[in-house]
Amino acid sequence: MSRAEPPPGGSLAQAVVRALWDRGQTLASVESLTGGLLAATVVDVAGASHVFRGALVVYATDMKASLADVPADLLAERGPVDPDVAVALAEGGRRRCNADWCLSTTGVAGPKPQGGKPVGLVFIALAGPGGTVVRRFDLDGSRAAIRTATVTTALRLLLDEMNELDAR
Amino acid sequence: MSRAEPPPGGSLAQAVVRALWDRGQTLASVESLTGGLLAATVVDVAGASHVFRGALVVYATDMKASLADVPADLLAERGPVDPDVAVALAEGGRRRCNADWCLSTTGVAGPKPQGGKPVGLVFIALAGPGGTVVRRFDLDGSRAAIRTATVTTALRLLLDEMNELDAR
Repeated sequence: MSRAEPPPGGSLAQAVVRALWDRGQTLASVESLTGGLLAATVVDVAGASHVFRGALVVYATDMKASLADVPADLLAERGPVDPDVAVALAEGGRRRCNADWCLSTTGVAGPKPQGGKPVGLVFIALAGPGGTVVRRFDLDGSRAAIRTATVTTALRLLLDEMNELDAR
Repeated sequence: MSRAEPPPGGSLAQAVVRALWDRGQTLASVESLTGGLLAATVVDVAGASHVFRGALVVYATDMKASLADVPADLLAERGPVDPDVAVALAEGGRRRCNADWCLSTTGVAGPKPQGGKPVGLVFIALAGPGGTVVRRFDLDGSRAAIRTATVTTALRLLLDEMNELDAR
């Protein structure tokens, strides 16, 4: 596989499936903000069934604790849109889905701010064989635009981290 | 809310969110075939957070057992594309996600047949307060077209069953 960054959209998901396939690794996702869109984008690629395990769409806050093992006191203290919650979601999902890699998304899609957090504030975490990383983004646009940009950004983060791990 | 059938697409998801809201009820989904697209379609509606609990995207077969409590012997005997598996997915998801209603989708998106089942064979089940129903569909088109048609069909089934339950 080429190390050049693939174009966004469907081709990016194809690059992710190919990169996982080449390494014999699997992916899962835990999605609050994106509500299943990340998973749907990956499974749209023929051959995804060989590398994609599944996803937990933890839209209601209590589902983040019951399905993805986020500590209830962390959720109560910080709310769902928080970097440490994103990390807990990715690590819980990686364990629950028995995957090599797990991406998580949490943020505010709008139209209104949520719990004092502005529309467009997004945290993406990635748990993998080398540990867990989390990134903050401030995105613009409609609910749909913020979700689509989050999916693209998450898939790019995964490709970057896979390449980073190869280079170690 | 009007009992007339809403148009397909975004408006259909809006009708579902409105119908749930009016009844004070919640929805979850367990998705194999649609891979999160049903959940993503619902959460695209502003206000969905009041009625949508979340989803289990059980793409790998073993996840259908581990996350949605489908009996492993049923999966081994019938394979994942089966009406009784669809029922078990919907009932398991309703329980795991603590929702009033749970839609499940399983089928063959293609491009190749799967386990002797033809491309386009789809089962949709709906578990709700009045019990569980399951329907078989034979759909045409690309992977994306089959998934989109499955989401639309599932949301229509939910609206029909909500109205049916009201009329009892």
